[in-house]
Amino acid sequence: MNVVIRRAEARDVPQMLALVRELATFEKEPEAVTVTEEQMRDAGFGEKPVWWGWVAEVGAASGQFASGKLLGMAVCYERYSTWRGRCLYLEDIVVTEAARGRRVGERLFKACAAFALEQKHHHMLWQVLDWNTEAMRFYVRLGATFDPKWVNGRMTREDMTKLVNG
Amino acid sequence: MNVVIRRAEARDVPQMLALVRELATFEKEPEAVTVTEEQMRDAGFGEKPVWWGWVAEVGAASGQFASGKLLGMAVCYERYSTWRGRCLYLEDIVVTEAARGRRVGERLFKACAAFALEQKHHHMLWQVLDWNTEAMRFYVRLGATFDPKWVNGRMTREDMTKLVNG
Repeated sequence: MNVVIRRAEARDVPQMLALVRELATFEKEPEAVTVTEEQMRDAGFGEKPVWWGWVAEVGAASGQFASGKLLGMAVCYERYSTWRGRCLYLEDIVVTEAARGRRVGERLFKACAAFALEQKHHHMLWQVLDWNTEAMRFYVRLGATFDPKWVNGRMTREDMTKLVNG
Repeated sequence: MNVVIRRAEARDVPQMLALVRELATFEKEPEAVTVTEEQMRDAGFGEKPVWWGWVAEVGAASGQFASGKLLGMAVCYERYSTWRGRCLYLEDIVVTEAARGRRVGERLFKACAAFALEQKHHHMLWQVLDWNTEAMRFYVRLGATFDPKWVNGRMTREDMTKLVNG
């Protein structure tokens, strides 16, 4: 099957958001996706872009896959480590379930890594859910390591408002 | 004691990097700080700034603290959640040990939260080490929650190079 990896464009956002939803469902939080197509487009291609990405697109139609269908995507942005400097964060990497096992994810990950090297980022980082051993195996096979010492903290707008005004 | 919270400026970088080193030592990884003053200044105030921050500065000299000394700092940047949109990441918040217990950390955190609200960020997030219960208590007191489900993955430049070229 002919699958092309290329940089994401604004026109990809509807299919990308569908992939985001597929991942959120797999990660057992389908209701957590509150972003609209418009917000995602603005955040990627508007006045103050904050993310960029790659998509895996079907070239010539093949079997169940129409030409132009996105089989997967990766969404990245730059982060800054006060210890190590600029680095690349992989926010999401998704391959639609029907297209797994064709190294599409690996090709997407490699595109991110090549970009990070080109940008002279110190390292690449991301997060996986602690039960997602399949994802961990995928990354470890590509050369990654995991560090379970850090715990995510979060504060909602509601609690920020209380804190700031209260 | 007169402590002023204000946005960080390029001239603060040497004192800020000293606070970064103090935090890294507390977090048992002093050797992990490889960033130079020049790199930190460029990443905050150069052509493509990636972080911004706040500092807690001594106004009038008081006791052991000279006027102009930075007692603490917070370093932030914007991140993008494919689920929830733009959000504020708190990379580091540090108060030098001798100045603890004066709510300097709380004032720095509030400055970040006020900024996140102003920027219409969906939420604020950060990470703590799993053994740092004192930090967790601090954040929970301010209204935060913690989620231990996510594990950090990382790939070094060396391994990215192998992956991309190999």
